[in-house]
Amino acid sequence: MQQVRVGLIGTGYIGRCHAIAYAQAPVVFPLKGQLVREMLAEVTPELAARQAESLGFNRSTGDWRELVADPAIDVVDICAPNFLHKEMALAAIAHGKHVYSEKPLALSTRDAAEMVDAARRAGVKTLVGFNYMKNPATQLARQIIARGEIGEVVHFYGTHNEDYMANPATPLDWHCRKDSAGLGALGDLGAHIINMAHYLVGSRIASVSGDMQTIIGERPDPREPSRLLPVENEDQAHALLRFESGVMGQIETSRIACGRKMGLGYVITGTKGCISYTQERMAELKLYRHDDDQGRQGFKTLLVGPEHPDYAAFCISAGHGFGFNDQKTVEIRDLVDGIAAGSPLWPDFEEGWRVSRVLDAIALSAERRQWIHVEEIN
Amino acid sequence: MQQVRVGLIGTGYIGRCHAIAYAQAPVVFPLKGQLVREMLAEVTPELAARQAESLGFNRSTGDWRELVADPAIDVVDICAPNFLHKEMALAAIAHGKHVYSEKPLALSTRDAAEMVDAARRAGVKTLVGFNYMKNPATQLARQIIARGEIGEVVHFYGTHNEDYMANPATPLDWHCRKDSAGLGALGDLGAHIINMAHYLVGSRIASVSGDMQTIIGERPDPREPSRLLPVENEDQAHALLRFESGVMGQIETSRIACGRKMGLGYVITGTKGCISYTQERMAELKLYRHDDDQGRQGFKTLLVGPEHPDYAAFCISAGHGFGFNDQKTVEIRDLVDGIAAGSPLWPDFEEGWRVSRVLDAIALSAERRQWIHVEEIN
Amino acid sequence: MQQVRVGLIGTGYIGRCHAIAYAQAPVVFPLKGQLVREMLAEVTPELAARQAESLGFNRSTGDWRELVADPAIDVVDICAPNFLHKEMALAAIAHGKHVYSEKPLALSTRDAAEMVDAARRAGVKTLVGFNYMKNPATQLARQIIARGEIGEVVHFYGTHNEDYMANPATPLDWHCRKDSAGLGALGDLGAHIINMAHYLVGSRIASVSGDMQTIIGERPDPREPSRLLPVENEDQAHALLRFESGVMGQIETSRIACGRKMGLGYVITGTKGCISYTQERMAELKLYRHDDDQGRQGFKTLLVGPEHPDYAAFCISAGHGFGFNDQKTVEIRDLVDGIAAGSPLWPDFEEGWRVSRVLDAIALSAERRQWIHVEEIN
Amino acid sequence: MQQVRVGLIGTGYIGRCHAIAYAQAPVVFPLKGQLVREMLAEVTPELAARQAESLGFNRSTGDWRELVADPAIDVVDICAPNFLHKEMALAAIAHGKHVYSEKPLALSTRDAAEMVDAARRAGVKTLVGFNYMKNPATQLARQIIARGEIGEVVHFYGTHNEDYMANPATPLDWHCRKDSAGLGALGDLGAHIINMAHYLVGSRIASVSGDMQTIIGERPDPREPSRLLPVENEDQAHALLRFESGVMGQIETSRIACGRKMGLGYVITGTKGCISYTQERMAELKLYRHDDDQGRQGFKTLLVGPEHPDYAAFCISAGHGFGFNDQKTVEIRDLVDGIAAGSPLWPDFEEGWRVSRVLDAIALSAERRQWIHVEEIN
Repeated sequence: MQQVRVGLIGTGYIGRCHAIAYAQAPVVFPLKGQLVREMLAEVTPELAARQAESLGFNRSTGDWRELVADPAIDVVDICAPNFLHKEMALAAIAHGKHVYSEKPLALSTRDAAEMVDAARRAGVKTLVGFNYMKNPATQLARQIIARGEIGEVVHFYGTHNEDYMANPATPLDWHCRKDSAGLGALGDLGAHIINMAHYLVGSRIASVSGDMQTIIGERPDPREPSRLLPVENEDQAHALLRFESGVMGQIETSRIACGRKMGLGYVITGTKGCISYTQERMAELKLYRHDDDQGRQGFKTLLVGPEHPDYAAFCISAGHGFGFNDQKTVEIRDLVDGIAAGSPLWPDFEEGWRVSRVLDAIALSAERRQWIHVEEIN
Repeated sequence: MQQVRVGLIGTGYIGRCHAIAYAQAPVVFPLKGQLVREMLAEVTPELAARQAESLGFNRSTGDWRELVADPAIDVVDICAPNFLHKEMALAAIAHGKHVYSEKPLALSTRDAAEMVDAARRAGVKTLVGFNYMKNPATQLARQIIARGEIGEVVHFYGTHNEDYMANPATPLDWHCRKDSAGLGALGDLGAHIINMAHYLVGSRIASVSGDMQTIIGERPDPREPSRLLPVENEDQAHALLRFESGVMGQIETSRIACGRKMGLGYVITGTKGCISYTQERMAELKLYRHDDDQGRQGFKTLLVGPEHPDYAAFCISAGHGFGFNDQKTVEIRDLVDGIAAGSPLWPDFEEGWRVSRVLDAIALSAERRQWIHVEEIN
Repeated sequence: MQQVRVGLIGTGYIGRCHAIAYAQAPVVFPLKGQLVREMLAEVTPELAARQAESLGFNRSTGDWRELVADPAIDVVDICAPNFLHKEMALAAIAHGKHVYSEKPLALSTRDAAEMVDAARRAGVKTLVGFNYMKNPATQLARQIIARGEIGEVVHFYGTHNEDYMANPATPLDWHCRKDSAGLGALGDLGAHIINMAHYLVGSRIASVSGDMQTIIGERPDPREPSRLLPVENEDQAHALLRFESGVMGQIETSRIACGRKMGLGYVITGTKGCISYTQERMAELKLYRHDDDQGRQGFKTLLVGPEHPDYAAFCISAGHGFGFNDQKTVEIRDLVDGIAAGSPLWPDFEEGWRVSRVLDAIALSAERRQWIHVEEIN
Repeated sequence: MQQVRVGLIGTGYIGRCHAIAYAQAPVVFPLKGQLVREMLAEVTPELAARQAESLGFNRSTGDWRELVADPAIDVVDICAPNFLHKEMALAAIAHGKHVYSEKPLALSTRDAAEMVDAARRAGVKTLVGFNYMKNPATQLARQIIARGEIGEVVHFYGTHNEDYMANPATPLDWHCRKDSAGLGALGDLGAHIINMAHYLVGSRIASVSGDMQTIIGERPDPREPSRLLPVENEDQAHALLRFESGVMGQIETSRIACGRKMGLGYVITGTKGCISYTQERMAELKLYRHDDDQGRQGFKTLLVGPEHPDYAAFCISAGHGFGFNDQKTVEIRDLVDGIAAGSPLWPDFEEGWRVSRVLDAIALSAERRQWIHVEEIN
């Protein structure tokens, strides 16, 4: 069986989640390739060695450039801060590696486009970590839509709200700076809901009318809390959308939405039914069918189970639950199988670039106070 | 005690609800005036007589012009189809009557403005039937916001979606024609959520970017079902809002939103908390406070009770429920008390006109594909 | 049309609710008789006169004995404290009046039996105010069961928990004394859930194994708060049940169940489905059908609407809500129609007596620590 | 670092879950010992080899006796069918191995007692797989109770209902036979809720009054579906409980409860608050505090997060979810840490035996129709 040897860069928040999923994936799924946790890069050799030990990687390095150049690596997994994604991905591609990058793909659409081109020219496979679409409940939603169970989609409403920056006393961090994060809530959270919209509606977003605000304009300097530093990007944004299919949509994103801990959600209305979902109850999906008997119509709460995509590999009993890292495990199954079998991966860098275009279009629309065609963004 | 003698025009859907509330109000509340169900008008004398008998009115007439001119009437209650509101209200005002009209106030902002002017010049009181804001749960929401319990409002999201026209086989009716209804979902349902936005946010909507669609373009002719007639107004609409206070908002309305039976709802985010509500669970309000203890944060489900506005008059035990017509009963208490005590009524015709302006601004924005300042609409 | 002239005794909590429903009923329903609010009795002539004025009754009296003897009264409605039910009902029956009594019917099964006998001998109609079973959602539940939509019932779980006595500082009142209330939580709340069990399961309770406790043994004397008085009956109780049909059941009741404001609820499991309900969301019913398609099974939330029993008279749109007093309005419709049409009323005194037997059986079982056959209670 | 070398017997449903958790645990947690997936036993050498390969175990065997005798095994993990638990555990103990067994510990209380004695005499550590109590939400519930946040517990209500045998056409399997399963729903599901009651209430169950039924008396022979075989144990059971502390409790369990996919749940009422939970929403807990401000009382939905026990190791953001196998991962952390550090494990075999006593007491009580003291069961 072909080996798929992974080099992981970065072991912070999401890097650890990747590591948990790497450990779990080969037991959960009958993978098409032999997944090898080959090498791990961190900012110092010591930290790298310690993390390799605890996360189960064979080797480690304090220099990510060494990792991307290592001949025993097949795929480079980028979990480093956003502003490094581009440089790392291009370097990995230059060495002929497949690349698996966390979202957002890059700080700008232009950068993303460069990455797409490089990957295409090199013929390597790419995958972006939009893990929420790998959740069985959301895969089920897609399946229900694709099978026509709610008729033709007529409206999409999506949110990705969280409250991690809701407290004005929370110090400024990289999320709030243009040079390290690019966009604010749009880039960090909105990216997920745009990808979700593409996936679920099955059509690309064609044009947008957006608006956005920075609510907390200054935050304490983390090194000297009595000093306030300016927040450089938006705390909240929302937009009207039109998909290429003509479907109307609406999205909303915020990092200061008090009360939302994992407020990704969607309501998708069709001509014959409706789907409603919130990631805070990630193992259930609400489904309404307008052709149910009179007096017996209503939203039905479906608990995910073995009849639904990718659930049975974790547990064969319905309603027993599904966890955050389990989504990453599905994503990694896709990664390994795609590389081993030579089949396409999705969401790939191109999708990452498309998402970036929509986000930039929303920001531009908010600035210009007018509708923007996504294809105008380059 | 001063009498408040009501003349009711129209006893269809909402007219019957008014009648139920008129019967209930004097027992529920210690009214400041003596409510008298004096006269009722319907399209024929026979129907009027029958309805007066069953709804408890003293007299009846087949001619609404007789009713508005009757000297024993203090307030004219207009529950006739929308396209008649203006004519009836102006006639009632001409006779010096106070006017209580169902929403939408008129078919156009221009008509609404005329009604506002006439009422102002005549010095009569006016009230528009935006009954949902009279519900204790929503009054509580307003109270929570006004007291600063969720900090400063930073975002408003509101919907009023229903599915009464979701079935394409449902014949065309007056809702779908411009001459009888004016706008579609916006006028019939959206009006409520705009009024709600004004009430809850405590600031007027200043500008909008809207979009709308007619999904079911043709419907059966009710008199000859094999023939299809064109639907003349929108099935669904949504918009971005900016309030005068600078707050960002978003609304959505549809009459074909499969699954929504009474899908009026709102999520109001503040700097210190959040409120979430759906009219389908009209006796509960969800409240989140960001300053709750770490690990003990979460949305709390408040069941309305005697501590909340206007609940105790119906029942002195919390959580025992509140009904649709009970909202109208509160509205009628406001009407009778305002007239008897000579105090202001709200939402009055001016608010009806303001709501109309916002709706027209959304429609115009959808057409022009640009933001519209509400004050441009006249 | 035949008149049904009501004499109401007592205008406290529930008496006011009756009055609201009397006002509403003739407008909501096309009653079979002409409902007349004829006379009202309170503890003093002054209070009676004031209440008659505000509640819309023609005449009043400070002596309930005068009311029950009045020739212009057809039905006596007893909303006085529990310990007076028997005396008033027997007096009313002696004058040949129909009797509509609030629950619990009497302080003991023996007293209830006497009332049943008296009514039967006099040939008068009786009705007990178990209003929760008149709610459209619960009528729908009964309909679903009776039609076999969930197969054969195999388990009943019911609660009626509230927290009105949860605070130990709440002074002792009549609820806590044997001479005024009889049983504690069982009599005040448990009565409803026993009636509900009979109604929904469609079979009588045959035997019980019960347990109960007084958690707050002493409470402040309302006249001298520093003095503590003993609580004489149970704060909470629960029981296993066997119905005559063999079905297993379980009930629970408490007046100190922190968090439950109107915690009447039930889960009824059948061989092909399940129904779940809580009165705190009194306008919705959850329904599960095991024969739904694989992967599309789940509890469906039905919002009550015009297709369901007794909803359309209040509002013709689904999901628009239903209130506490609306249940009483349905009950009063039953009362008036039954008397006017000479048809049977239910739940009648016999059902009140049956409920009392079950409650006494639970209390006896708790004392003896053994199963008790309900028919042993007399 | 000390090694903890595991020998896993059985890789069916729950064995696979263990394997997933073994893979995940060392990455998720900083374990106190080095977890080694040493050996795996299945019914044939071929199957064992295949499973060892896919589940990441070093060695395999077709003979579990070989595994329990292997000198390189520190702890034997028994995931074989229930009727084998005793024999395997005694053999493992005889070889001085620690034992980690799935529930129920044994087919009878007598057998469980024998296992407890053997383990105690051998001085080995034991753990029973009551994984639901390892869930952060339930650990949080325990913490809330232990800290007195809901006052003194006054009532426990618990269920573990599922519907895996609800269809009468489902063939008879080992669950339905006394020789392979012992009790029915009580043994398979009820065991969890009894353990949960002990854990959460913090007091042991002292006496019970139970009832039970076999609803589907015959099922198809799996080898010859046209032939029906008798079901030998109960489909559903419920019981009243008294804890040693005097607290009243109630439990319910069923394997034919249509609609319940993972219907483990509890409502725990205290003198100052209430906790409500269902495993179908395993990442949230509802909490009510009676001392909240008037008009601001209500059940609060807490989403598990990093402030709560054992969540942060999986993800550092609140509300991001928690999965079924994650509970097992916490359990395995307890196992490895306990063995490596020489500290006590819980729930141990003694707790397994205590649970068994309660279950047998319920069954005996149902038969004798009387209350049974748990200590009478041996």
